[in-house]
Parts: sequence; C-alpha cells; structure tokens
Amino acid sequence: MLNFTFNNPTKILFGKGQIANLATEIPKNKHILLTYGGGSIKTNGVYEQVITALKNHAVFEFNGIAPNPKFEQLLEAIPIIKKNNIDFLLAVGGGSVVDGTKFIAAAAPFKGDPWDVVKKNPSDTSIRNIPSIDTAMPFGCVLTLPATGSEMNCGAVISKVNSPDKFSFRHGLLYPQFSILDPATTFTLPPKQTANGVIDTFVHVTEQYLTYPVNGKLQDRFAEGILLTLIEEAPKVFADPNNYDARANLMWSATWGLNGFIGAGVPGDWATHMLGHEITARFGLDHGETLAIVLPSLLNVKRKQKREKILQYGQRVWGITQGSDDARIDNAIERTRTFFESLGVKTKFSAYGISIDAVSALIEQLKQHNLVVLGEHGDIDLKQSELIYRGCF
Amino acid sequence: MLNFTFNNPTKILFGKGQIANLATEIPKNKHILLTYGGGSIKTNGVYEQVITALKNHAVFEFNGIAPNPKFEQLLEAIPIIKKNNIDFLLAVGGGSVVDGTKFIAAAAPFKGDPWDVVKKNPSDTSIRNIPSIDTAMPFGCVLTLPATGSEMNCGAVISKVNSPDKFSFRHGLLYPQFSILDPATTFTLPPKQTANGVIDTFVHVTEQYLTYPVNGKLQDRFAEGILLTLIEEAPKVFADPNNYDARANLMWSATWGLNGFIGAGVPGDWATHMLGHEITARFGLDHGETLAIVLPSLLNVKRKQKREKILQYGQRVWGITQGSDDARIDNAIERTRTFFESLGVKTKFSAYGISIDAVSALIEQLKQHNLVVLGEHGDIDLKQSELIYRGCF
Repeated sequence: MLNFTFNNPTKILFGKGQIANLATEIPKNKHILLTYGGGSIKTNGVYEQVITALKNHAVFEFNGIAPNPKFEQLLEAIPIIKKNNIDFLLAVGGGSVVDGTKFIAAAAPFKGDPWDVVKKNPSDTSIRNIPSIDTAMPFGCVLTLPATGSEMNCGAVISKVNSPDKFSFRHGLLYPQFSILDPATTFTLPPKQTANGVIDTFVHVTEQYLTYPVNGKLQDRFAEGILLTLIEEAPKVFADPNNYDARANLMWSATWGLNGFIGAGVPGDWATHMLGHEITARFGLDHGETLAIVLPSLLNVKRKQKREKILQYGQRVWGITQGSDDARIDNAIERTRTFFESLGVKTKFSAYGISIDAVSALIEQLKQHNLVVLGEHGDIDLKQSELIYRGCF
Repeated sequence: MLNFTFNNPTKILFGKGQIANLATEIPKNKHILLTYGGGSIKTNGVYEQVITALKNHAVFEFNGIAPNPKFEQLLEAIPIIKKNNIDFLLAVGGGSVVDGTKFIAAAAPFKGDPWDVVKKNPSDTSIRNIPSIDTAMPFGCVLTLPATGSEMNCGAVISKVNSPDKFSFRHGLLYPQFSILDPATTFTLPPKQTANGVIDTFVHVTEQYLTYPVNGKLQDRFAEGILLTLIEEAPKVFADPNNYDARANLMWSATWGLNGFIGAGVPGDWATHMLGHEITARFGLDHGETLAIVLPSLLNVKRKQKREKILQYGQRVWGITQGSDDARIDNAIERTRTFFESLGVKTKFSAYGISIDAVSALIEQLKQHNLVVLGEHGDIDLKQSELIYRGCF
C-alpha cells in the first residue's frame, strides 16, 4: 500500500426529510446565497422544501448555473455577495452547481485575478504549485443528482465561455461543511441523467481501481462493492424510478466513488476522464457518454499494464473465472460495455455521428492542453491516446 | 436504508515514516502532554521517533495508562495539564491509551464532577441525555495496536478501580484531530495482541452487519470487504510478522470497522460486546477473547432473527452456497469459530477454565448494569442472554 493522507470533514445528512434540517445546520444569523441551476428544483419540490426550511434566514439567490459551469457567469455572483453581506453559500442541485459554488466560495474573498483560484490549485497533485487561496466562504449542499461526488470532496471542474477547456482544481478549504442527500429528490431525474450519473460513478471507481496491484486490499474490496452496488441497483431504478432504497444506494455509491477513500494508498489513472473531457469540449457529448465511449477502448489498449486488476475485476465483479487471461479480459470489457448500453448510453463514436477524422482533432486538443503523459504509469502518450480514440469506433 | 448523519473529521496519516510529520501536525507553540501505556513504545522505537519529531516542541509525559483504563488514574493527568499549561494531548499506543486520552481531553476543561463526562455522554444513542461537555482539549494519536477503531471515532470505554463496570461514552468533540498509522509500528506486537485486534475488528463489523436487511447495499459490501480482508491477511501476519502490506491492511481494516461508515443507515446489535464486557469484568479475559467466545453462540441463538444476513454472510464471506438454510447457518458459524481458533484464540468457556456456574453470576451482573434489553431488536432479555452464555460451553 502507498503512503497517504485521508481527511474528509464533510458532514452528511442522509435520508428522507433531511432538507428540513437546513434550519439548524446553518446558523440563524447567516446571510445565505442560494445557488442553483436551470430551475428543475422549482418543479420537483426541492426549492420549496429549502425555502420552507430557511424561512427564518435571510436568503438571496443566484441561479442559472449550467452544466460545465462557466467562470465568467460564476463571477457574477461576487457583487451579489458583497452587496448583501452574504456569508454562507448553499448549493442546491447536481455536481455542476456544487462545483460552481466551490469556485464562488474561493473567488469571493480572493484578492487578485480570480482565474488564479483555478489555475494555481490544480487537481493534478503531480504539479508542484503554491496554492493561491488561504480562505474560502463556508458552504453547504443539497444534492439532487448523484454522480460527481462533489458533495463530499474538495475538487471542482469549471470552464471558460467559448473555450474547449475544462479545468479542475481542488483545495482543502473547499469541502462542503455539510451535504444533504435525500434520495427522494432524485425520483424525477430524467433517465438519461440517472444513467450518466451511474456511469460517472462507475468510472470514478475504475480510475482508482483498474490500475496495478499495490496490495490495497480494503480499497479494492470497497471499489468492487461500489461497482457491484451500481450493477445491482441501477436496473431497479430504471424499472421503478421511485424505488427509494435503490435510489439511496446509487446516491451513497456516487458519494463514495470520489470522496477520497477508495483512492487513498493506491495509484490513480484518470486517463478516461482526460480523454473524455476533450470529447465533451469538441462535440458537446455528456460527460457520462464520453466515459462510456472511452473506458472499454482504454481497457483494451492498456490490457497488458492493467492485466492483474482487470482479471480481478472480471472475477469479483462479473464472476468471470473461465478462459485464458485474454479471453477473461475481453469478457470483462464486454460486460462493462453491455452494462453501459443497458442504461441506454451508447459506447461507440459512430452512434453519436462522430466520424474517424475526429481523432486527429481530439489529439490536437490533447497536445494543446499538454495532456501528453496520462495514466497510472504515465505511459499514455499521444500515440496511445490515438489508439484509444481509434478503438472507440 | 435508515436515515443517518455521518461526519468524521479525523485526519489520517498512513504509512511508513509518518510519525516524523508530528513536527508539523502539531503547532510549534503547543505544550504537549504525551500519554502512553506500559512502555512498549520505549522498546519498539516508537517513543524515540515521537520524541525526535517533537524535538522543537515542549513535551511533558503521562504514562502508565493500562488496558481497560481507569478513571481514577486518568484524573492524575489533570494537575499535570494545569501546572504546565498543556494545550495539546498526544496519545501514543493502542485503544486503551487513545480512550484514556479522550477522557482526559474532556475532563481537563470540565467544570463539575468529572464522572459526568462518562455518565452524561453515553454511547448508547437510545438514551436521551443532555451532553455534559461543550469543549474538549485538542488531541492527536499515534496508533500502535489496530483493534478498537478509537483512532478515528469519538467514543471511548473506561472503568473505575475495583469495579466490574466498563462505561462507554462518546461526544462529537472527541474525534482525534489526526491519527498517525504506521503499520511498521505493529511488527513487534505479541501474536496474542494481533489476534485480539483482528477479532475485535471482526466483531465490530458483525455487530453492524449481522442484523436484519434494510437494503444498505454499500454498507453490506464494505462490511464484507473488511471481513474478507481480515480473513485473507491475518494468516500472512502470523506467518511473517514483518509483512508490511498485510499489517497495513489489518490496520486500515480496524479503523474502518468502527469509524462510523459501515454502521451508518443500518441497525446495530452490540450484544456480543455487552455480554463480553461482563466476562472481562468478572474473569479478566481479554476483550478479544470474550468476543470470540460469545459471537458463535449468539449467532446460533439468534439464527432466526438474523437468518437472512447470516446466509448472506455465509455466501459472500465464506462461499457457502450449498445445503438447507440451517445447514448453511451452522456452516457459517463454524467457519467463524474456526477462523478465531486459527488465530490461537479459544472460543469456549471451558478452554479458559470457566465452569457452567459462572453463568448465573454473569446474568446477575447484566441485571446490575441494567443490560436487560439487548440486540438490534431489543429482544435479548436475560433469558436469552443466559441461553447465549450457556451456548459458550
């Protein structure tokens, strides 16, 4: 096992009716800025629950945070914060709202160019940098879309307007003080968003699990536990969107897919995410769709380097015990693809109308973003990335 | 899944050489009281590592904290704290040292009868009480014996001198600020302590797992993951006490056995612990020994109420898929007993020279301690407890 530090102070309030506890989780004297997205919380009853819980608080609003939240738009929250002496942020929504709120929490008290909040606190821990922030506004979260894990970690991804770039940053000051997870808020999610969330969680796990063995036995078991839970519970949610327990298991799995535990003491890959981001940037596919496209091909191309862990995955997650190593790896990859497809998410470029000449454009983007050394061994260069993209047809 | 709150702010520094980080984890201006036990840390090099790391800090000492730490002895730390303006405690040792230090952390700033720290903050959350403490000294921990999970939770167990009583208390202010877990510090543990630690962890898990199903799929998978890791790694440690990775996996498993996660959103039993405590109090057996005696008998007596979960346990942890339900349950219990015995820990009263007339004395103690309603259904009354004890012969 590798050395590690693990520290996750976010308080989770999980279950039916927990939104009412906002009344006591946020001190009465706080001026709250409620941040949210396109308004789905106004049709599914979540907004009303939040406002009712906060009826004795001073509440201001900042809405319209879109998927892939934009730097320029988020900056518009800062004058509202200053004008109204806001001293607490409450993100209500999915990962984009939480990520955007993390940026606001860091940028509002920041002196200097706010883009430095993103640029100087990179998620990539291999980049040695002096963090740019030493304070952040306190914030909490009411999660309505399980997927990114942002509700219980200190990272975020934001973009600039009219740019194909997505930048991820993280800082220990950016853990939510609390996150409220009521599975009932996810009953009305469109099937596509549920599916994307399951795939996002699945691939968060594989990024930290399908690398090479370092004898992190507990991390492996927990990673497998999340994958098995997703595979077992996702079909129940598609059969009955109001299945509380299945929704609860998906929601809690998404949190644990990226709250730091399964990645502590083991190597990380993250190439599927990096290659996927370029696809979103160029063609606007959903994040979950890009992961579903890239992962099977990446596992195929890296089958030698990931051999032991893919075999373990095949056995423990899919029950594959027969055949040669290569046959078992093929089978494990095929089961993965079939699972994604069973959620209604296509796993080939061609299904999205993307043709083979897209590959050179994607490789060009990787070059521009200096993503020329990826994967747990740092051996996914542009040539390997090209192979992976070509394997997506 | 049941509603729950989960919040565990303890920072973990895990791995080789992490003790050196004490130098920066504790602010330079702190006056530290180093608390420890019988002195094994002076022979295994841990004391020296700690003192070296803290060479630029003001360090005072309080030693002699014994297994089942005693209220009266712990109180002796308080004048030392006052006299030397101590403002940080550092527990170096196993669960008893950490538990004792938690008591000191709460009792030192406490106004009033210090026994109220224990009595008015009961671990049993079914007891509605107004907590007695509103502040506690900050403290950290260097763990040298994986077992109790105290390094990453806010509970503790202490006793009074000349009393057969063990009292557990907990409070959200009593999480360690940090805990350092270096598996190399456990290389020199006597096999008996290693075995007791494995059994303590195992039974922490079964108390939260072998109850009744509430569809907490992730909690179940993680619980099973800990059990599987213990079963896989413990023999390696007995074959080679210096096996770093196996020691690391046992150490991290012990932490996760009782850091709140696997118990969040699911019922808890804890009867094995309660019945075991009475045996320790009366006959002085190690905590781990008492658990190894009680658990197989308890599972047998409660086989009907725990049927579904014991069957799941048999299948997923021991691979038992054949036979009638009752045969599979028998098999699962027998495998559990055999595992404990394989660690060198006896699982029958008779092996410890305890005769059948002990039962009435133990039942009398349960009565005195008002432990007349135990288990996840509250259906283990004194009659059932007697059946369980009788089944331990």
